[in-house]
Amino acid sequence: MDEDIRPGEIAVTLPETFDAGVYFIGRIRTPWTRREDCPRNARGSDAVCTIELDPRYAAALDGVATCTHLIIFYFMDRARRDLVVQVSRHSGRRGTFALRSPVRPNPIAMSVVTLLRIEDTTLFVIGLDCLDGTPLIDIKPYFATVDSVPDAVVGWSKSGNE
Amino acid sequence: MDEDIRPGEIAVTLPETFDAGVYFIGRIRTPWTRREDCPRNARGSDAVCTIELDPRYAAALDGVATCTHLIIFYFMDRARRDLVVQVSRHSGRRGTFALRSPVRPNPIAMSVVTLLRIEDTTLFVIGLDCLDGTPLIDIKPYFATVDSVPDAVVGWSKSGNE
Repeated sequence: MDEDIRPGEIAVTLPETFDAGVYFIGRIRTPWTRREDCPRNARGSDAVCTIELDPRYAAALDGVATCTHLIIFYFMDRARRDLVVQVSRHSGRRGTFALRSPVRPNPIAMSVVTLLRIEDTTLFVIGLDCLDGTPLIDIKPYFATVDSVPDAVVGWSKSGNE
Repeated sequence: MDEDIRPGEIAVTLPETFDAGVYFIGRIRTPWTRREDCPRNARGSDAVCTIELDPRYAAALDGVATCTHLIIFYFMDRARRDLVVQVSRHSGRRGTFALRSPVRPNPIAMSVVTLLRIEDTTLFVIGLDCLDGTPLIDIKPYFATVDSVPDAVVGWSKSGNE
């Protein structure tokens, strides 16, 4: 994949083996089937997306309907993992850990979503920006007391957004 | 591990194989070496903890020092993964996805931390609650525009906290 590196980007050699494994516990359904159609970030669309949880885990949804907002983890399985410095028109040249790009050693993305309703093992939410069919990794309740920092600043970003 | 199940808890059979792998990209150093010593949640201590990033990824920190807050992912490698309903004195009987418990199909925890400073590949932060030596999975910038929801509610929780 080296030919895909842009001038200024840096790739590293990744370890030869993984240290732990993850299960795909469901699929995310969105209106977007091509990367160029996805919104720039999770506030870029009001589209209602669905999270289809593997019925194996149905009982784990007990209590989730009382949450107004959820944290969703999903696996960006089409992303390369070896870039430590990335270049884009929007963000300039940045270290991977200063970006929310799917390209990172562990391509697990996180979005905070608004929960509309749950039907069986399907969650209807607003606030996702990923490709249709993206594998689901986790669902967590969003606790404002620990998760909300309204005055947080990302100094390199003029827009305050990735 | 079945003998560890409390009355009311439900375990499921997990898939036989993992769907993807993760790298441990560093270690988190905290003052806590026993689970019972860890603070109840990430706002439960003002202790300065350190994140020791594998030097392989050093260049990926470019720009991170401009962030006041970071999202840290870490792997709770001592947690069982098969419980879909859990019982605790604090939270009662809840589905796993309504909890921030480390016990979940993919035991990847998330904390929002305050970044104090970076020295080489060591980040000094406030806001972690995990055991000393916990494997690091990811570092992300915290964007208030997409990550902060001050009025989010978890209806089942009286304290508004996990």
